[in-house]
Amino acid sequence: MKILTINCWNHSIRYHLLSSGGQTVLAMGVVERVGLGSAFLIQKAPGKKRVFLDAEFIDHHGAVALAIATMTDSRHGVIPDAGHISVVGHRVAHGGDQFRHSVKVDHHLLTAIRDLGHLAPMHCVPNIAGIEACMKLLPDVSQVAIFDTAFHLTLPECAYMYPLPYEWYEKYRVRRYGFHGPSHLYVSRRASVLLEKPVQDCNLITVHIDRGVSLCAIRNGQSVDTSMGMTPLEGAVMETRCGDIDSGIQSYMMRKMNLSVWELEQMLNQKSGILGITGSCSSRQHLLEAALDGDPRAGLALDIDAYRIRKYIGAYLAVVGPLDGIVFTAGAGVREWYAREKILNGLECLGIGLDLERNRTMPENSEYEITGSGSLVRTFVIPTNEELVYAEDAAAVHAGIYVDHHRHDYAFAQHEFVPVQQLV
Amino acid sequence: MKILTINCWNHSIRYHLLSSGGQTVLAMGVVERVGLGSAFLIQKAPGKKRVFLDAEFIDHHGAVALAIATMTDSRHGVIPDAGHISVVGHRVAHGGDQFRHSVKVDHHLLTAIRDLGHLAPMHCVPNIAGIEACMKLLPDVSQVAIFDTAFHLTLPECAYMYPLPYEWYEKYRVRRYGFHGPSHLYVSRRASVLLEKPVQDCNLITVHIDRGVSLCAIRNGQSVDTSMGMTPLEGAVMETRCGDIDSGIQSYMMRKMNLSVWELEQMLNQKSGILGITGSCSSRQHLLEAALDGDPRAGLALDIDAYRIRKYIGAYLAVVGPLDGIVFTAGAGVREWYAREKILNGLECLGIGLDLERNRTMPENSEYEITGSGSLVRTFVIPTNEELVYAEDAAAVHAGIYVDHHRHDYAFAQHEFVPVQQLV
Repeated sequence: MKILTINCWNHSIRYHLLSSGGQTVLAMGVVERVGLGSAFLIQKAPGKKRVFLDAEFIDHHGAVALAIATMTDSRHGVIPDAGHISVVGHRVAHGGDQFRHSVKVDHHLLTAIRDLGHLAPMHCVPNIAGIEACMKLLPDVSQVAIFDTAFHLTLPECAYMYPLPYEWYEKYRVRRYGFHGPSHLYVSRRASVLLEKPVQDCNLITVHIDRGVSLCAIRNGQSVDTSMGMTPLEGAVMETRCGDIDSGIQSYMMRKMNLSVWELEQMLNQKSGILGITGSCSSRQHLLEAALDGDPRAGLALDIDAYRIRKYIGAYLAVVGPLDGIVFTAGAGVREWYAREKILNGLECLGIGLDLERNRTMPENSEYEITGSGSLVRTFVIPTNEELVYAEDAAAVHAGIYVDHHRHDYAFAQHEFVPVQQLV
Repeated sequence: MKILTINCWNHSIRYHLLSSGGQTVLAMGVVERVGLGSAFLIQKAPGKKRVFLDAEFIDHHGAVALAIATMTDSRHGVIPDAGHISVVGHRVAHGGDQFRHSVKVDHHLLTAIRDLGHLAPMHCVPNIAGIEACMKLLPDVSQVAIFDTAFHLTLPECAYMYPLPYEWYEKYRVRRYGFHGPSHLYVSRRASVLLEKPVQDCNLITVHIDRGVSLCAIRNGQSVDTSMGMTPLEGAVMETRCGDIDSGIQSYMMRKMNLSVWELEQMLNQKSGILGITGSCSSRQHLLEAALDGDPRAGLALDIDAYRIRKYIGAYLAVVGPLDGIVFTAGAGVREWYAREKILNGLECLGIGLDLERNRTMPENSEYEITGSGSLVRTFVIPTNEELVYAEDAAAVHAGIYVDHHRHDYAFAQHEFVPVQQLV
């Protein structure tokens, strides 16, 4: 029996088909331009040719159907039919403060997820569309929801409450939720293995840098603070999202530019962050190049980005107690050595030293220690693997052996686990 | 010759008359309810009876006139006539990025200050009214503007720029300015004396806790970061201002409660912070009492407040390099021992230890060290004295011997200086 994981975005879906233990990826694929016309699917599978299919105009239901058809296709496929899928794990962006762990989805639960959608409409609407599609296409298969927020529900009240009118919390659930939970969970468990220390004794700061960025303060293996807030707009600098700003700026700019709430929201979400500073570059991947080419605003973006992550590391140092390790993860967290160097430069006085040479020569796609000699805190680069969390949670919920993130024995938290080489 | 300092707020003014060296306060007073009707003046002077005068309905001009009349009154006064005033130092909340130091005010300069008023209208309008009143009432006396923001103009670009569309900075001057400059200046110079180390070698974190709260990261005696931003709304938790929040909350709440920009601004400025969390208590002074009386939300407000200041201390540790000292100052920073204890509790792993006993028994209105044994970082409580900065700057500008905050030899930065006991 196989496990399918599905992650739906506004205009794309990403899927993985894994072996029952979740250890082996049998196939993974994306469908892009969902709902936009000229959609297409790309699927990769070990030992098979890459599949590219045009799909013209399809919605999320059509995209999921195409994915299932492709993985069961007699030519491209990796399983003979959909009957081999025993459970589907769906990434759901927002579980509010109701969902402390992954759960089996039925119609009742789907309503609850839909009710939370107002907290992150851009993310939850496609998540729900993906679940509904699978409920129709695979009616006899268990559907499990894995929430981005659940890992952070261990935050203490002083970390999740905002200094805002208390009724906003009571009536509108305004509080810090945090996101990227499965990623922080995965890398913190891997760090515990590398530190050879039980996770419940590990104090960590995990730094997830991708298009979105979030940091997590982990005390005794539990999330006690995180930089994203009620929405994914708070925190460090992101590719197009602003992160932390003075909240007086919004009303000032609405007046100055005569912006509507919607227009302002668009600017903070789509035109800020690295794109805002540089005016031209929205990808971290091209930032160093642009800075080396002499673009002063690319250099400034590198500076601000690293400076703000560094301040979060300092802030979380004051939160977690004696720190065991710092972990960099996700696309840019693994790829961009210069960002790691800039972030940690000069932190020796806080017991954090980096091995500059090892940091620069980090082999691709591997777990790697970059601690400098004499450093009290160990620093790691650990590629994340959220799909493994989705797959293990889905399988465990399906088998009825799942309690929550903290009490589940993840295979990837064991010494003998060998990190899966990602296909993409 | 005497120095008059004036600090105008929306509905009040505060004034000090000092001896020419700025060392002795001859009189200090407040006029309250300016522009609201039933205004009144209170003046104190060493060796004199406290003066209380009703003033019915007066504006800022009337309030300044009343203050001058009272300090020169034959019965209550401390000087025979206004001719004894040689210079007036005006606190101006916002100097944008133009005013790097205190300056003599003429009509040309007043226009420049007025042009900056849009950055902090609530503060700058009364500041300007105070200057205009003095220019009319004391036409032959030099008027000097001392800016709350000037001390922070040493911030590096990575600390003052927001990850927002760059044009917002170019066209609308959206950047971090920071406030409470004279207070951070004063206490950092005093700390350098107590540390017996030249200020240009001092790395400090100064924590100003009053109705407004700001922290300042000081490297080599210069402000390199500060928690307040473009406006005084950013940063730590304040009595009624929210400080740092997820900027996604604003648009969410405007929609949920159908709020206008103005209404939202009012809620973030007037109904948030400690008042927002507790729903009833806007003063730090009553918070501990309420918490001890069993009000859980007062307890929560204490927790959130200390937690967020603690995170700033951590963040600034990662900014300033090896830290010499932490300084608590201003009303609550000096008064509330339990806040200091809560903020620094458990930071021994970062080299910061508190002497709990000394912290609790701090004598009122004195400079006091509260460092714990074995602590690498020294911690002080230092009552602030912004008026001394206004007075020294005003006198030095008037005498033509002033360059800027960093190159001026302040009397209070000398070993032989004896801190002035404040009259209030």
